[in-house]
Amino acid sequence: MGVCREWRLRAVPRGVLAADDLALADVALPQPAAGEVRLRVLRLPMDPAIRMTLASRGGNYGAGVAVGSAVRGLVLGRVEASRSPALAVGDIVSGFGSWSEQIVGDAARFAPVSVRADLPLSIHTHVLGTSGLAALHGLADVGAVRSGDSVLVSAAAGGVGSLACQFARLLGASRVVGIAGGAEKCRIAVERYGCDACIDHRAAPDLEAALRAALPEGVDLGFENVGGAPLQAALALLRPGARIALCGMIAEYDAAEPAPGPANLWNLIVQRARIEGFRVAPLLADRPRVDALLERIEGWLRAGTLQYDIDERDGFEAVPQAFAALSNGGHRGRLVVRVAD
Amino acid sequence: MGVCREWRLRAVPRGVLAADDLALADVALPQPAAGEVRLRVLRLPMDPAIRMTLASRGGNYGAGVAVGSAVRGLVLGRVEASRSPALAVGDIVSGFGSWSEQIVGDAARFAPVSVRADLPLSIHTHVLGTSGLAALHGLADVGAVRSGDSVLVSAAAGGVGSLACQFARLLGASRVVGIAGGAEKCRIAVERYGCDACIDHRAAPDLEAALRAALPEGVDLGFENVGGAPLQAALALLRPGARIALCGMIAEYDAAEPAPGPANLWNLIVQRARIEGFRVAPLLADRPRVDALLERIEGWLRAGTLQYDIDERDGFEAVPQAFAALSNGGHRGRLVVRVAD
Repeated sequence: MGVCREWRLRAVPRGVLAADDLALADVALPQPAAGEVRLRVLRLPMDPAIRMTLASRGGNYGAGVAVGSAVRGLVLGRVEASRSPALAVGDIVSGFGSWSEQIVGDAARFAPVSVRADLPLSIHTHVLGTSGLAALHGLADVGAVRSGDSVLVSAAAGGVGSLACQFARLLGASRVVGIAGGAEKCRIAVERYGCDACIDHRAAPDLEAALRAALPEGVDLGFENVGGAPLQAALALLRPGARIALCGMIAEYDAAEPAPGPANLWNLIVQRARIEGFRVAPLLADRPRVDALLERIEGWLRAGTLQYDIDERDGFEAVPQAFAALSNGGHRGRLVVRVAD
Repeated sequence: MGVCREWRLRAVPRGVLAADDLALADVALPQPAAGEVRLRVLRLPMDPAIRMTLASRGGNYGAGVAVGSAVRGLVLGRVEASRSPALAVGDIVSGFGSWSEQIVGDAARFAPVSVRADLPLSIHTHVLGTSGLAALHGLADVGAVRSGDSVLVSAAAGGVGSLACQFARLLGASRVVGIAGGAEKCRIAVERYGCDACIDHRAAPDLEAALRAALPEGVDLGFENVGGAPLQAALALLRPGARIALCGMIAEYDAAEPAPGPANLWNLIVQRARIEGFRVAPLLADRPRVDALLERIEGWLRAGTLQYDIDERDGFEAVPQAFAALSNGGHRGRLVVRVAD
């Protein structure tokens, strides 16, 4: 029986997460039972949606995290002990688990990752991991992207958004416009992630008008990460038969109370359009589809056509500050805590 | 050159439509040009969504109606003169046109109706017309109804809703629950239209809790006619992979300003669910699909398994009062003005 540390929810956050809403605690590590493995956690990607598991109103996203329990999210780890034929010692795996230094759990909860030695390990949490899967699954499977589409991506400089912008273009979109918070993020979305234009939702006095100027023919496909004003603007610009792939609602995550939704859902009727929500966690159970999506992404990556950014913070102790950084936007691309190597 | 009367928009309605927002006017009837027909209007069904064409904010639904112009909607008419090979004098046709006693227009705008002599003519505006098409298209094509689904229908005693409740059952739904305004409508929805339960949204102190009791396993398919509180409650009850077919948003139509949308769109992500809007007008261009839908509906009708109600008001002069009656709910089933026979 070993011991390691984990990050537990100390108090339900009010608004933006504060570092002392989480508390470090020692946790006993049992020996793996039959069918279980023990992992050394290597990387903890910071997903904005985890915020919704920490509030009682978000408790229906996954199981919800009770006060006193470990926060849970995606983890990338190395198998250090195995009592399952599915995973061997030394395998690199990914799956959902607690924010701990080590994890003992059912091997079926973790999928082996085929590590690319020439690429940073964290790429398996980003381009070749859940960010890439969310972007491509959202565009292709949920949003049914078509050649010639006009695509609008919110949080266009974020982990998923930056990939969605580039994938949309590679999938034949004729126009890709981003929404981001701040001039610097907008610059990156255009210069680095290939947007035709990017609107700063903090600076635009009339977001809908600014988007209409950038997308005079409207929106065929919205890749929505934010909700709030960007979602309402996307709805206003829908073309007939348009789709909104709803990946996240960042604007909601730190709100103390649920905010009212867009006042123009009526446009879904006018344009015979749809909003469809999706998550990557259930997709992971469909291995053939996951493998096909990752193969396509790796093809683009190997062709040298993708730009990506991974913002790594060092040390297990960095978790609360890193997670809080999601709220203030002080990061670039995918935010990952490097726990061990 | 003849003359007839038409109903014009005199002023943009504020809130609920008042009878004097419309004004009768004489209009000159030109001779039909090549490709045109002249119709005698027989029936004018009152569609709640027409209200959205009368407000500037609803102008994007169809073309919108300018002050001084004729109100437009679905019409059922008889061809009295034809310069088109597609339609012959005496044909009964349906299509979108102005609220006039007679209409001269392009024959291509009107589709011939195969009249069932043993049934009331108005059935071609209801069960065998746009109400039936909206209900079946919404359930089957948009909502992808499946055997065993739990289905929630709002405005369950209304023209489209009353049919959606019955069609859902005939398509294999294991549970059909309605929402309606008032005890009498709820009684009819259960006793006449076959709902397992119907919740009175005016009387229920907590609509979501009342629906949860009636649908303990949640909602697979929502057929949404109302928006507002019923839509938010439907969203709260979604099961994984659920669909909401958005047919109308009656709660919005009389509002002076757009109301905020549901505060729980987040649930679309949690449940990987979708909201999809639709309209019948574009469907009408797909004749093979329309014929297939109507054939299925007529099969149910001839088997004697459908209950329907048509509330007819007599005379062209009755139009404004009939339309206003949509807002106060003082009608049952499909509301139709009988202009001529």
